[in-house]
Amino acid sequence: MEERLKPMDAEQLRESAHRMVDFIADYYKSIESFPVLSQVEPGYLRKLLPDSAPDHPESLQQVLEDVQAKILPGVTHWQSPNYFAYYPSNSSIAGFMGEMLSAGLNIVGFSWITSPAATELEIIVLDWLAKLLNLPDDFLSTGPGGGVIQGTASEAVLVVLLAARDKFLSRIGKSSLNKLVVYSSDQTHSALQKACQIGGIYPENCRVLKTDASTNYALSPDLLNEVISQDISTGLVPFLLCATVGTTSSTAVDPLPALATIAKRNGMWFHIDAAYAGSACICPEYRPYIDGVEEADSFNMNAHKWFLTNFDCSALWIKDRKALIQALSTNPEFLKNKASQANMVVDYRDWQIPLGRRFRSLKLWMVLRLYGVQNLQQYIRNHIELARQFEDLVSQDPKFEVVTPRIFSLVCFRLLSPDNDGDKGNKLNRDLLDTVNSTGKIFISHTVLSGTYILRFAIGAPLTEERHVNEAWKVLQDEASKLLATIQNN
Amino acid sequence: MEERLKPMDAEQLRESAHRMVDFIADYYKSIESFPVLSQVEPGYLRKLLPDSAPDHPESLQQVLEDVQAKILPGVTHWQSPNYFAYYPSNSSIAGFMGEMLSAGLNIVGFSWITSPAATELEIIVLDWLAKLLNLPDDFLSTGPGGGVIQGTASEAVLVVLLAARDKFLSRIGKSSLNKLVVYSSDQTHSALQKACQIGGIYPENCRVLKTDASTNYALSPDLLNEVISQDISTGLVPFLLCATVGTTSSTAVDPLPALATIAKRNGMWFHIDAAYAGSACICPEYRPYIDGVEEADSFNMNAHKWFLTNFDCSALWIKDRKALIQALSTNPEFLKNKASQANMVVDYRDWQIPLGRRFRSLKLWMVLRLYGVQNLQQYIRNHIELARQFEDLVSQDPKFEVVTPRIFSLVCFRLLSPDNDGDKGNKLNRDLLDTVNSTGKIFISHTVLSGTYILRFAIGAPLTEERHVNEAWKVLQDEASKLLATIQNN
Repeated sequence: MEERLKPMDAEQLRESAHRMVDFIADYYKSIESFPVLSQVEPGYLRKLLPDSAPDHPESLQQVLEDVQAKILPGVTHWQSPNYFAYYPSNSSIAGFMGEMLSAGLNIVGFSWITSPAATELEIIVLDWLAKLLNLPDDFLSTGPGGGVIQGTASEAVLVVLLAARDKFLSRIGKSSLNKLVVYSSDQTHSALQKACQIGGIYPENCRVLKTDASTNYALSPDLLNEVISQDISTGLVPFLLCATVGTTSSTAVDPLPALATIAKRNGMWFHIDAAYAGSACICPEYRPYIDGVEEADSFNMNAHKWFLTNFDCSALWIKDRKALIQALSTNPEFLKNKASQANMVVDYRDWQIPLGRRFRSLKLWMVLRLYGVQNLQQYIRNHIELARQFEDLVSQDPKFEVVTPRIFSLVCFRLLSPDNDGDKGNKLNRDLLDTVNSTGKIFISHTVLSGTYILRFAIGAPLTEERHVNEAWKVLQDEASKLLATIQNN
Repeated sequence: MEERLKPMDAEQLRESAHRMVDFIADYYKSIESFPVLSQVEPGYLRKLLPDSAPDHPESLQQVLEDVQAKILPGVTHWQSPNYFAYYPSNSSIAGFMGEMLSAGLNIVGFSWITSPAATELEIIVLDWLAKLLNLPDDFLSTGPGGGVIQGTASEAVLVVLLAARDKFLSRIGKSSLNKLVVYSSDQTHSALQKACQIGGIYPENCRVLKTDASTNYALSPDLLNEVISQDISTGLVPFLLCATVGTTSSTAVDPLPALATIAKRNGMWFHIDAAYAGSACICPEYRPYIDGVEEADSFNMNAHKWFLTNFDCSALWIKDRKALIQALSTNPEFLKNKASQANMVVDYRDWQIPLGRRFRSLKLWMVLRLYGVQNLQQYIRNHIELARQFEDLVSQDPKFEVVTPRIFSLVCFRLLSPDNDGDKGNKLNRDLLDTVNSTGKIFISHTVLSGTYILRFAIGAPLTEERHVNEAWKVLQDEASKLLATIQNN
């Protein structure tokens, strides 16, 4: 007779988990040996794995060997010091400790009662972070507002949009959904468009206002005013303005104070997406970039991007938590309990899309405690300094140009086309991106601004040091020279 | 000069993580010593923690001491063998290994290119699981359908509702949103109501059909037919039918084949929520409960409930993935890449609400490989056998009654009121729930069926053995006797 499975034996857990720790630590020791961007072909893994689950157990050794041989080649190494694509997604020892503990306890914190510590630590830690960012007191849990950890900025902007939508519809009637208008710039993250789709906002009522180099790709208050006036004159109802501090393409910063005034005058919900750049605002010298947040209805930053907190951890603060709860609460019998019914507690399930939720505050708490504020500030400053150095390197090479002024730790640049032809220049930079990423030495990504294809070099991986930036620049120069030589030979 | 922070030093990671492993293994060794339901008062933690984040680093030792002294008392121990509330939320060594590796790699798998292994392993493992459940081939990735891991069943039903909504609206026009009608029973999970709120379905068009003991709280096809006919006659458009296999209150099983016929005849999207009971259907003897899934458009089960996969991991299969992608895709420039543009790959960001996503397939893959199918079947069977034994215990005690026939591993029961008074009986059971949970020895939850307050005893924690069930029954009997004595003395 086979012995009964012991899926949670403490000593077996200890033994297996120690092995996994060594596996992961060894991974970090060797992380620079992998191609940063995975070089596999679509469908590679299907050829390496069986068609169905095994009937009988396999050993941890077998599984770890498969991770090494079959999974890791298909991994794009976001934690590599040579990762400069998109925006960073920080892992840290503290964040990893928090993930381990959260997975170890494996609670489901939908209501306060299902683990009071999960709810209360989240409240406390988001108050800590709000104070670090010098957010207005209205965002603290002690008033009618408060903070909550969402999975991602997409979910943050979605719940905000739903709260704003339902607040307006409760006033003008749900049949007026077709009148609600959302405002943002063409640099706003696509998550807003997705939130509009989900919330049923009419596509023709999503105002995506054009930006250009004259405002460094920030939203123009004049244009916004103009469009809002037009909309009001045709009977539409402006209800949500989404501003960004640190856009995904180029870290543009929308002019919050001017936008806040417009939002207020028109009675709109004003949301600020600082998913990437919010982290920098714990440094006093970068805090002015969110001046105007005092007038916002909601504010979001991703601790999982550039704040050493493992994915996922997106911090959202809101001034009127009732609006959120109004839009997202249900109250089924099977979840009723004394503490909730007596309104003595926060039940975060009513602040988010899903019912279930992980104990995510642990990792943010550990990051703040194990590193401390001064180290975190230094961490941010170091990346920004490295980006400044990279910007200098690019500026000094006449073959390249820096396209938008660097603000935080992203440099937008391009290789100049020898014949000054826009289309050829775009192709040249697309080719440079492909060849550089194909080397496996570094991974960068791109964007398009005013029709021009641009390379993005985003510094922010926890292991990145000056030497990695310098070597990356050498890879870019080398591949650029090769490309230019090919062109000149044709 | 202070040394620069090394947030991801491999050897520091190794040392810290080994300590955390021991902390977690020790937690599991002592897990029975904690009150299952946390006994803290609202606001307890605020008194124990400082008001702001520390300027300077604290040691891991300090943090772990705080976890022990301040956090654990506020934890409700979902992994305790004496946890019988709601539904289980399984942790396992394999699941924990997967969580560790996922947090260690810390990739963000929104597009195939951002870690091909994450997308491809998810496709493969959901095909494995679909085969285990004997789902129709239409749900496999090889056709026009496929599987995807959502965070929770709430997100699964939301994306399904959005796909169905937009499919219908593209036909009848978005201004006809007010005509769309959703059908479910009053036993359907509140996640559907929440999805309706989010998707803007008119509350008056959400048909919550009454169930009662005559169908064992399953949805009546006759009633459904009747209501649909009425709706059609008033010009409304039935678009979504949500059936449940294993309802949250009492594990009721809706009659899938009859419902499928009705859905098909009326051209509706047919979704099956088997969040809890789906796991049991890997055993051939329980598979008949999802007969009829062949005709469903989408099917969902939570591997994080009763399938040894740590939270969160909700498996959703869909027959027409295009409908999902249509509703949820955006295509911003900064995410474009060759593989995606060439339609050679799956980009799961278009199958879900958020953009970012964790490498969740690792944990499901590890569960399937490290345990094997036969062990997983035995694991399920053991819990169901324990539930059968508990049901026997309740039946043999004339002071109690089993309220609904037990199907899986949940027993719905109640203490009988000595004077046969409904209101008093409800109060009696509410009091029993409170006193039992206040002992800290076990944690159970409740529901209300046809106005009657009922106790739920859900078996499914990985550490639960026969002795825990017997001891739990003794706690229930003892507390019941005390309560009854108090009543008789008054």
